[in-house]
Amino acid sequence: MGKLLIVGSVAFDAIETPFGKTGKILGGAGVFIGLAATQFRVDSAIVSVVGDDFPQSYLDLLTDREIDISGIEIVKGGKTFYWKGKYHNDLNSRDTLVTELNTLADFDPIVPENYKDADVVMLGNLHPNIQMGVINQMEERPRLIILDTMNFWMNNTWDELVQVIKHIDVITINDEEARQMTGEYSLVKAADKIQDMGPKYVVIKKGEHGALLFHKEHVFFAPALPLKEVFDPTGAGDTFAGGFAGYLAETKNISFESMKNAIIHGSNLASFCVEKFGTERMLNLQRHEVGKRLLQFKELTQFNIELT
Amino acid sequence: MGKLLIVGSVAFDAIETPFGKTGKILGGAGVFIGLAATQFRVDSAIVSVVGDDFPQSYLDLLTDREIDISGIEIVKGGKTFYWKGKYHNDLNSRDTLVTELNTLADFDPIVPENYKDADVVMLGNLHPNIQMGVINQMEERPRLIILDTMNFWMNNTWDELVQVIKHIDVITINDEEARQMTGEYSLVKAADKIQDMGPKYVVIKKGEHGALLFHKEHVFFAPALPLKEVFDPTGAGDTFAGGFAGYLAETKNISFESMKNAIIHGSNLASFCVEKFGTERMLNLQRHEVGKRLLQFKELTQFNIELT
Repeated sequence: MGKLLIVGSVAFDAIETPFGKTGKILGGAGVFIGLAATQFRVDSAIVSVVGDDFPQSYLDLLTDREIDISGIEIVKGGKTFYWKGKYHNDLNSRDTLVTELNTLADFDPIVPENYKDADVVMLGNLHPNIQMGVINQMEERPRLIILDTMNFWMNNTWDELVQVIKHIDVITINDEEARQMTGEYSLVKAADKIQDMGPKYVVIKKGEHGALLFHKEHVFFAPALPLKEVFDPTGAGDTFAGGFAGYLAETKNISFESMKNAIIHGSNLASFCVEKFGTERMLNLQRHEVGKRLLQFKELTQFNIELT
Repeated sequence: MGKLLIVGSVAFDAIETPFGKTGKILGGAGVFIGLAATQFRVDSAIVSVVGDDFPQSYLDLLTDREIDISGIEIVKGGKTFYWKGKYHNDLNSRDTLVTELNTLADFDPIVPENYKDADVVMLGNLHPNIQMGVINQMEERPRLIILDTMNFWMNNTWDELVQVIKHIDVITINDEEARQMTGEYSLVKAADKIQDMGPKYVVIKKGEHGALLFHKEHVFFAPALPLKEVFDPTGAGDTFAGGFAGYLAETKNISFESMKNAIIHGSNLASFCVEKFGTERMLNLQRHEVGKRLLQFKELTQFNIELT
């Protein structure tokens, strides 16, 4: 079995959408990535930090799904990272109402001994120095290092970000961030420039407009599945990343062809994530549902033009 | 050979983009549709109207490509429809600076005798009564009637639009217009509602984000080809429609599978249109270039996940 090391927040989210609102519920990039990866035959572990206000029942949800949580530090007297946000009517934009970093502010990740030889490392959206700290703890170069980041780190820790992405294979980033990062409006040109900075593969996430994978002169595109209802987009990007990483850790095949499949698996899983609040849909997702929707993805995108 | 009847403007365009500007050049939906359709084995005719200020050389460009222009009325002393627009830096939005309807204001389309049995009718974006007038002139029900429209007609001629779309098979419309037309944000729901109004097939154009084809429970998606440079988007939507209609007129196969291919052909041709000002690229487009780019479309979208 492939081994997947996940580094990312384990958190409380409070979400408001046009359809309703929640209190503090289970959230965080590490959790969404980890839950998505359970759809593949992989051993996975989450490295993160929480306060002792974090319910044991939430941790049990992870261990019940055979996710190794020995790398989740519980800080006594500490408080767990908390994010509260409100989505606008189109669900494409949101206002952040509360961000309390709490224990995440001093997060010093410790990679469990038996994950220092992980095949795939998925570095969730965190301070680039934390991401670099994890890479430095690996015993040998992982087969694949994937890094997610966002505009906040570009604005505030540009030099550190430039440093860490020299050491990774795949960067996932959204379209506006790719443009900001490179000053190029064309995503083709932006992806070229990012590849010059280190990552050999660039995944550009466009939300409801799908995702692009760039590698040298190759481009692959996966649409988001058109849905009747998008209930709550929270965690969709991380679920996408978790599906991408999970598939590659299972197959241990990091060819471009394999990454195409990984992008489709990621998009497929993300289409479930948005159907309920927070992690609810992913916690109850069955294998046969995943397979059925993959078939929809095939119907959505595959055609048969004979080229002569 | 399949017969394709095209109804749409033949016009002067003046275009300004961040890359340059033109004087009055050849434009109009009918022209872009017609040029795209020349990439297929079809007999096609354009029904339109111009003034006697319209250069013979422009008409010759059409007849040189074996497009039947006997249905283009030349009004003595009249002036040709003129549109002038300026694109913003992202090329996704534009300001219309001039719209002079001129002879198009009193356009009374006359379908040439030998096109009253056309296999496919492509009704470009015009007053719904003009579109209806063309349908009424057909000797027998065409195999396929495709209609393009826009928000202007929804706002100003809603009742007439509702009337004409009862008689068509395929409507092409952009995403915002589909939402406006139905009050549904979800494009899946919007397409359902539009199908209830008449058209059995709904094509939703999303510009740089591709196009969706809906029919009952089936959905197909074609991305726009990611390009290094988009030079001028003018005519891309009409070129897409022309490729779609041209392919279906050539094959005379209007199954959903065939329409998938038609959508890909339309997207493929549109990717050329935006590379130069106005019709320039389409006037010089070679068959082998089209085939080569279709291969890129395959690489962009086709994957190989085995489902068990």
